[in-house]
Amino acid sequence: MPVTFENYKIEPADHAAIARAEAMLDNLAKPPGSLGELENIAKKLAGISGQVYYDTKKRCVIVMASDNGVVEEGVSLAPQGVTYALALSFAKGITGCAVLAKQFNADLIVVDVGINGEINNPSVKNRKIRKSTWNIAKQAAMTREEAVQAITVGIQTAVQAVEAGHKIIGVGEIGIGNTTTSAAVLCALCGLSPEQTTGKGAGLSEEGYRNKINVIERALQVNKPDPTDPIDVLAKVGGFDIAAMAGAFLGAAHMKVPVVIDGLISITAALVAYKLNPLTKDYMFASHASFEPGYRHAAKSMGIMPCLHLNMRLGEGSGCPIMFAVIDAACAVLRDMGTFEQASIEDEYVEAVKDADFHIGRL
Amino acid sequence: MPVTFENYKIEPADHAAIARAEAMLDNLAKPPGSLGELENIAKKLAGISGQVYYDTKKRCVIVMASDNGVVEEGVSLAPQGVTYALALSFAKGITGCAVLAKQFNADLIVVDVGINGEINNPSVKNRKIRKSTWNIAKQAAMTREEAVQAITVGIQTAVQAVEAGHKIIGVGEIGIGNTTTSAAVLCALCGLSPEQTTGKGAGLSEEGYRNKINVIERALQVNKPDPTDPIDVLAKVGGFDIAAMAGAFLGAAHMKVPVVIDGLISITAALVAYKLNPLTKDYMFASHASFEPGYRHAAKSMGIMPCLHLNMRLGEGSGCPIMFAVIDAACAVLRDMGTFEQASIEDEYVEAVKDADFHIGRL
Repeated sequence: MPVTFENYKIEPADHAAIARAEAMLDNLAKPPGSLGELENIAKKLAGISGQVYYDTKKRCVIVMASDNGVVEEGVSLAPQGVTYALALSFAKGITGCAVLAKQFNADLIVVDVGINGEINNPSVKNRKIRKSTWNIAKQAAMTREEAVQAITVGIQTAVQAVEAGHKIIGVGEIGIGNTTTSAAVLCALCGLSPEQTTGKGAGLSEEGYRNKINVIERALQVNKPDPTDPIDVLAKVGGFDIAAMAGAFLGAAHMKVPVVIDGLISITAALVAYKLNPLTKDYMFASHASFEPGYRHAAKSMGIMPCLHLNMRLGEGSGCPIMFAVIDAACAVLRDMGTFEQASIEDEYVEAVKDADFHIGRL
Repeated sequence: MPVTFENYKIEPADHAAIARAEAMLDNLAKPPGSLGELENIAKKLAGISGQVYYDTKKRCVIVMASDNGVVEEGVSLAPQGVTYALALSFAKGITGCAVLAKQFNADLIVVDVGINGEINNPSVKNRKIRKSTWNIAKQAAMTREEAVQAITVGIQTAVQAVEAGHKIIGVGEIGIGNTTTSAAVLCALCGLSPEQTTGKGAGLSEEGYRNKINVIERALQVNKPDPTDPIDVLAKVGGFDIAAMAGAFLGAAHMKVPVVIDGLISITAALVAYKLNPLTKDYMFASHASFEPGYRHAAKSMGIMPCLHLNMRLGEGSGCPIMFAVIDAACAVLRDMGTFEQASIEDEYVEAVKDADFHIGRL
């Protein structure tokens, strides 16, 4: 460790471009820094692209769909067949994420990496590793080779999305049981207890919640994932969905394209990518603060802050399109706002604000 | 107290429509409540409009522009002329709020209620009460009659906006010195100290900050506003901008149209409207959590929660258009998501989720 996917180098952010964007932002007719996170987003986009102006018009959400063997432990209220049904609902455009993607002009790229059934729908890409992982409460979810294969599918999917012209990518999923696998991965990677990472998912009872905690404890005991080896963690207690999503983060960073994190499962995959290569963080944007308790730990451990507080817990990638709108706002400000000169604001004030201590409290 | 603007009745939210929206949301193919605040927004819109589906396509930001006599106390880094310059910059479409309004397809309605100069621009409506308020550190900002007149301008502006077809209204401002007047109004209405409500505005030094606190203390001592009489508070330590904005909140509520709060000055005006008539709250949406410390107190005292955390402190109404996008998202979900039946999700699961304890932790 670190594992390097040799053909997919990731470069750090372009700090000269960030400085250029900052200078431009500080010359706009507003107190410097007063647009807060919008300014930080605009600068980060400059660092990613090397250009001050960034056009996010063509964008997509990549949705990795897979089944998880651990559902046989009763960790989810929903039967496994819901993964299959939701993948087809994506094709019909009627899932929460599909509706929001359409609302914010984002394309959908739905990829079957391990659904337990035959999809046969042109809207769902078949990159199946295998039908469902094994039950992590009893054995590893997959082999190490399968984990690498799933990550590679994710990288390739992101690379192809960028080659098709997408300028920003969101990363979502469908996979009944994947709040359990995500919680297990977070426990392994961050040294947390199941109680710290586990919520009631999609409506578990107290009894169901205790069972879920217990299943995660068993998964960690049986598999003993190596916390210093993210691929080992993925293979032992993860899922094809999380592995492929981690690959999507790596692929987006390799292609120098901003990539948006959704909720718990998405941030778990982002953390895996970050552990494989910390430079990926330069390309990541959090979107919403998920209701699931593990989210906060993952965000904190990467030093990433979500700006949408919507109390959402749907998954699918549903937070990403809303964040695209916030990122659009940041691009619009940098592109279209007037300078002090254009706003006919007197030099005296411009000098005063340039001397002032404006950057206090910037995140 | 309470003052009633007799011709402008405000009705409470339609709880039957909220219940209809909730039933529809719970039948969509997702765990009930899992879209968090988006579901709450959709329900609130139903309560406002009496209809389950709400169309927010035509929308505007009302920007009340006025000068404040208190600037002669050196409370702002910017000279008073910046209010005038920004009003004209709005007409050119180059302010932060103008750029964001355009990005999110919102019209702008800029109203001069007291700019210290002649605007003569068809994009800025002339409803001037007087050129600038008086200096609150020495006397009342305005007469009680002027306060009522400014509120009425705000009500009429909102009513006309709705008559022109706008389905959702944001409320912003320009007015150098208005973080000082807002802080004073919040102190008077909520019994807070100037330290609790006052920030460094647009970049004050520590010395400037101490002066601002001192000016607010003097304003409260000299004027002794009556905390139980919001119009007295507005007249004594407020401004034409805040008064007209309070009127815009009242007018929107009267017309049964959702109205979005921006930052510190906007939420101060919202609080004034709420104190005049608590039913206005049924029509209000917070947008972003302003960086200014008074914001939190005002939000808490109304029991309102912003869902955007952008660390912004520009004002103008700049947070409103971004919130329009979030509200669009809520409308899209309710309108376009599939039901469990459309998603071919088995009855067994549907029954299970309907029994489950999903609404835990809803805000």
